[in-house]
Amino acid sequence: MRATVMYAAGDVRIENVPDARLIEPTDALVRVTRACICGSDLWPYKAMEQSEAGVIMGHEAIGVVEEVGKDVHNLKRGDLVVMPFAWSDGTCVFCHEGLNTACVHGGFFGNAEIAGAQAEAVRVPLADGTLFVLPGGKDDALLPSLLTLSDVMGTGHHAAVAARVHPEKSVAVVGDGAVGLCGVIAARRLGAEQVIIMGRHPDRIALAKEFGATDVVSERGEEAIERVRELTNGFGVHSVLECVGTEQSMLTAISIARPGGAVGRVGVPQDEAMPASQPSFYNNITVSGGPAPVRAYIDELLPDILEGRIEPGRVFDRITNLDGVPEGYRAMNEREALKVMIKP
Amino acid sequence: MRATVMYAAGDVRIENVPDARLIEPTDALVRVTRACICGSDLWPYKAMEQSEAGVIMGHEAIGVVEEVGKDVHNLKRGDLVVMPFAWSDGTCVFCHEGLNTACVHGGFFGNAEIAGAQAEAVRVPLADGTLFVLPGGKDDALLPSLLTLSDVMGTGHHAAVAARVHPEKSVAVVGDGAVGLCGVIAARRLGAEQVIIMGRHPDRIALAKEFGATDVVSERGEEAIERVRELTNGFGVHSVLECVGTEQSMLTAISIARPGGAVGRVGVPQDEAMPASQPSFYNNITVSGGPAPVRAYIDELLPDILEGRIEPGRVFDRITNLDGVPEGYRAMNEREALKVMIKP
Repeated sequence: MRATVMYAAGDVRIENVPDARLIEPTDALVRVTRACICGSDLWPYKAMEQSEAGVIMGHEAIGVVEEVGKDVHNLKRGDLVVMPFAWSDGTCVFCHEGLNTACVHGGFFGNAEIAGAQAEAVRVPLADGTLFVLPGGKDDALLPSLLTLSDVMGTGHHAAVAARVHPEKSVAVVGDGAVGLCGVIAARRLGAEQVIIMGRHPDRIALAKEFGATDVVSERGEEAIERVRELTNGFGVHSVLECVGTEQSMLTAISIARPGGAVGRVGVPQDEAMPASQPSFYNNITVSGGPAPVRAYIDELLPDILEGRIEPGRVFDRITNLDGVPEGYRAMNEREALKVMIKP
Repeated sequence: MRATVMYAAGDVRIENVPDARLIEPTDALVRVTRACICGSDLWPYKAMEQSEAGVIMGHEAIGVVEEVGKDVHNLKRGDLVVMPFAWSDGTCVFCHEGLNTACVHGGFFGNAEIAGAQAEAVRVPLADGTLFVLPGGKDDALLPSLLTLSDVMGTGHHAAVAARVHPEKSVAVVGDGAVGLCGVIAARRLGAEQVIIMGRHPDRIALAKEFGATDVVSERGEEAIERVRELTNGFGVHSVLECVGTEQSMLTAISIARPGGAVGRVGVPQDEAMPASQPSFYNNITVSGGPAPVRAYIDELLPDILEGRIEPGRVFDRITNLDGVPEGYRAMNEREALKVMIKP
């Protein structure tokens, strides 16, 4: 089958690889209908060390079940499924608590051990726990939004939950990538009154406004912090959604939170230490978040997509077949494209 | 009047200073009945740079109101009051939210601007908001426990609240100082089933057990982490109360939290950056806490003290008059004394 293989920073190729196939009796084989490139794929795209074997990339997909192992009971051939970016058994103590990304038997797609979904097909471990079967008769027009349940919509929602977004409160979203934009949707969906998007890319800002952002802060560093304070009676916001992961973005996030406020971080942290430990302490700021248990959020988010109340699929501004994936990485890395959908 | 003045690291003197007196119409003058030395006083005791003027130390006290300014309405001469370590107006948006330590008009006792309470008397700004009037007819035997409402009991409680302690859950307390021991009380009071005290000082461990600690971990570093995991089915605890403030203690706290767990930190952080940003992210650990709004907690904690359900005053293992305060600092700094009460 054809798949996207990354060999080193900047080196993404479409290659013929051995067909995905069942290995464990709890596996499912899924034919990929839609996949996409994630902002987090850009970290290895910028920095991956040379690898002989390469890594089959991709951790977001919608697809059709083609075959299931003998211990898979909740899925059948032909089911249309969402594949969350993490696989999980659905039965362990953490899955029961809704933290599937800490599943004691789980893991992540798109690394040296488990092949990813930017491919014609993907092997899904612990398929009963991992995959979410969509109700039948899906309109193709809904597929982009349904695809975001694999990661970015669930991740934006997780940031909002971790940041304790509540009705009538103020929110700032640090980062205008796909996750940040989904964070805007999530914050409004949870009732936030004021949602400040921090970014400067005109197309993304426009989309953030359509998603419900009430204010835009395009300054950076100290100026951005001052601007958010001006917009919030000098205090800062109740909730910050940190959707970048750099030291600078985290510093900004902590600095614009109101005393007693919360930062929900979903940007993968690029540094070992977190900045501003003392300011966050003196202001009693809560820092929470991590890999989003998107599997657990699908039940809550799906009806809003099916009934058209939210349209997170609008974050996709390009669509390509597998041949165009390397160009998709380049375009996202250079911020020409917001998020690239793949139709293998 | 006589007061405790710190001039530099290790240099604490009892001196005659100008009498405390009303300055603002919202002030009260309080004759100090009991004060004490705090673990956080040991940070300047270890590191303060030479000061010509010196600092009148102390931020915890019980006392009797001697005089009030003309804009003070809720206090009268003769009231027995708790003085929280922070002064606050009781009316601003943060005070209304129960975060008095972020009061927009407030501040802290025992620094270059506001004299402290290790003295015969203390001037209390914004007295109506700051002071808590105790019900009449107090038994002297209750004074030590009531004194802890100024700081350590409220601070231990804050750590437990920030760490989201819940009934039947597991808790670890990092630090066996007075705040850590009050954290043990707080965790049990909130219903925790398992409370692991991390420390190695026999007297403190014994007291922690009397306060309700179920397990003791006396190892350090990696061994301590392993030991806590052994005690918690390999997962770590739901809640960690971080009552030290060093890089090492914070690293331990994050490392022993269970995925999805929380660290409530009340140890004043000694470093600008927080360690283990990536592990805390990947495990979805919440880090919360800061200066405890002890003023807001008195209503909740006081009945348990008055009715004898908790006895946080047992953390005091020495009592002295003002003359013995420098020796009290030395003894606490060398961990000979747990917490020193002052009867001026």
